[in-house]
Amino acid sequence: MTQIENAREGIITARMEAVARAEARAPEYVRGCVSAGTVVILANSHRPPEFGVGVGLGLRTKVNANIGASPDHVNVDDEIEKLRVAVDAGADAVMDLSVCGTATEILQTILRESSVPVGTVPLYQAAADAVSSGKAVVDMTEEEILAAFESHAEIGVDFFVVHAAITREAIARMRNEGRLTKIISRGGAFAAEWMVRNDAENPLYTRFDEILGIAKARDVTISLGDAMRPGCLADATDRGQIQELLIQGELADRARRAGVQVMIEGPGHVPINEIEANVVLQKRVCGGAPFYVLGPLVTDIAPGYDHITAAIGGAVAAAAGADFLCYVTPCEHLALPAAEDVHAGVMACRIAAHAGDIAKGVPGATDWDDSMARSRRAREWAEQIKTAIDPGLAAELRSRGASSVAADICTMCGEYCPMKGVETYL
Amino acid sequence: MTQIENAREGIITARMEAVARAEARAPEYVRGCVSAGTVVILANSHRPPEFGVGVGLGLRTKVNANIGASPDHVNVDDEIEKLRVAVDAGADAVMDLSVCGTATEILQTILRESSVPVGTVPLYQAAADAVSSGKAVVDMTEEEILAAFESHAEIGVDFFVVHAAITREAIARMRNEGRLTKIISRGGAFAAEWMVRNDAENPLYTRFDEILGIAKARDVTISLGDAMRPGCLADATDRGQIQELLIQGELADRARRAGVQVMIEGPGHVPINEIEANVVLQKRVCGGAPFYVLGPLVTDIAPGYDHITAAIGGAVAAAAGADFLCYVTPCEHLALPAAEDVHAGVMACRIAAHAGDIAKGVPGATDWDDSMARSRRAREWAEQIKTAIDPGLAAELRSRGASSVAADICTMCGEYCPMKGVETYL
Repeated sequence: MTQIENAREGIITARMEAVARAEARAPEYVRGCVSAGTVVILANSHRPPEFGVGVGLGLRTKVNANIGASPDHVNVDDEIEKLRVAVDAGADAVMDLSVCGTATEILQTILRESSVPVGTVPLYQAAADAVSSGKAVVDMTEEEILAAFESHAEIGVDFFVVHAAITREAIARMRNEGRLTKIISRGGAFAAEWMVRNDAENPLYTRFDEILGIAKARDVTISLGDAMRPGCLADATDRGQIQELLIQGELADRARRAGVQVMIEGPGHVPINEIEANVVLQKRVCGGAPFYVLGPLVTDIAPGYDHITAAIGGAVAAAAGADFLCYVTPCEHLALPAAEDVHAGVMACRIAAHAGDIAKGVPGATDWDDSMARSRRAREWAEQIKTAIDPGLAAELRSRGASSVAADICTMCGEYCPMKGVETYL
Repeated sequence: MTQIENAREGIITARMEAVARAEARAPEYVRGCVSAGTVVILANSHRPPEFGVGVGLGLRTKVNANIGASPDHVNVDDEIEKLRVAVDAGADAVMDLSVCGTATEILQTILRESSVPVGTVPLYQAAADAVSSGKAVVDMTEEEILAAFESHAEIGVDFFVVHAAITREAIARMRNEGRLTKIISRGGAFAAEWMVRNDAENPLYTRFDEILGIAKARDVTISLGDAMRPGCLADATDRGQIQELLIQGELADRARRAGVQVMIEGPGHVPINEIEANVVLQKRVCGGAPFYVLGPLVTDIAPGYDHITAAIGGAVAAAAGADFLCYVTPCEHLALPAAEDVHAGVMACRIAAHAGDIAKGVPGATDWDDSMARSRRAREWAEQIKTAIDPGLAAELRSRGASSVAADICTMCGEYCPMKGVETYL
């Protein structure tokens, strides 16, 4: 039985107990949420009984790091290094987005090495396999597509993206309105291209029940892809995006009815003033399913700093109720990220997630901040550095001028340290 | 006559016209806002007629970079380098926060070299002068304090901070409630320490009319300091902070009545869910005066990344109506920033300001984003880099793998570029 089926039977599994412990929540709370579909536990049924990360209502906002090779840069060691950096930096999950001939080998290695749940987009595998066998992406068959999902479930992935909600209806709605950057989701583009080329409905939609069967057999959590997520502010929250969201909602119902855990992928590029509406709408339309947002990026003009534009949007989204943030690295829109970009991306995303947790009132979220504040008041530098989200960086910056000042102050204010001054008088 | 006096007389000055041109606003709009006190123009009357930066309602959100020496690091060349980096990165104003024996010389050099308005905290000057003459900060006299304001207005600063709203009443209110990090504003700490040591009311409050006279003589805009801005999330929006805000509101009335331009300094460390309330309250209580926020930082746990925690808070604050963002560098809470930190701080703050402008509907704000989106759709890389907020960084990241892929794609997706793919089919 899957987690959601167990939960409905009133059974608290070892995974639910592990999630409850990690989140300082009652096991019955976790069971109830899994049963209702407001929490998913990312864990392939092949995993050890206590493995799994909970994502959803009332839990800590989670952070995903995308890794994986692109056709121009295929090196399994580089991807394992990125995995290590992501996990060391505190990522709660990773997605292997490799699109290349040796994608299966890379995925198997990542699954073997990863201590956190691993997600994939099996459609990429099908596309890369098609190209490897001399065909175009649009010429992959429906059976080949389904085989990729089967293969990833078997290999052991914990969650996978299904771009099933980009239907002919959704594409028509997008075309009716017009769009500046059309489709910028890679999987979404594969699906749309396939549909146009083959003049057929999206096979991920028409054969969704079969995909549900594959997912259910291994308790793979489905992430319903947002193929039409906006690629720029001008396209945000448009009719195409919302049409797809409505279909995501219907598919989420079907997944839950089938006993399959499901979450919803969300935008994208969204101005700050539209983020809360996106979250409220997703929660309402998708029956409270966990919301997994990609950014959102709050402006288009900052390539090189998109970990920051995404941290702004991610924090606002998490504060409004988003449950799972996909990191964005400084390389977004420019190049495949390297290990140092992965580190920067995870750190910025964790800051956003934590700031969101404080705002949405996740129990205990401010304990960390209060602990830092007490160390600051006492001007205990070793303790401040230990408490920092990135102790290595904090120590490095602190050390720059530390030798020139007393042990209890810093070079910002020197002897004029306000914390030290008021201690004497207030 | 000061700008506000001219505006009340119905006169559109050259400065108002320059601001109107820079903001693509009607001159009469600017005049009306200056008259009402919802916009200030930062420009000492010594400045050329068209010099000045507008801050306030309906204008682009502005970015300030703090530079200046600390007692442990005094080098005028370093500060001039930071000034250059800040202005090159797009800062709209700088504040020289030097606290050292040679502060006057540094300030004069910065004023000579700066193409943007310069702000100061004259109380720092008074404190440093006291220490230079062998006294303690708390032993400076009221006359010495006023002399520092007089001196900075004369030298030509465009705006200065007056920590006049931290009164005995405000300190009592803070003490009644209790506070984790007490006072972390350096100027606020000087004022509070002085008050306790001398068992007297804050001289910046008791002699506020004299300070208004000094400001008016040179049209120096007053920034009413928030001495009790929270230094951690636990202290955010507490009774001490709001008590001071109420007094800031009264003092803003007095400044406007005296014909002095005035803005309000705001927090600080504030959780996301309290930021909008802070902005709404400031606007209501201070008669719509421009709001100049320091961050706000949305979590305490990220030293080394406080340009990011501040970008999150600054973007949310700007979206809610804040007018002027003070940058925070990665070195905040750790050390005096170096030139590269100034660059990182200004860039993050400009992203926040721009994201806020989009959200609050500043006319034309999204043009920049739309331009980037069009270049992305066309996969015109040279144009994307030119349009980026930091073309140098964008070019550097792009160049990493560019040689291995075709000119119109990047190493993220390679030949699987969704933009390129859908172009063929959609």
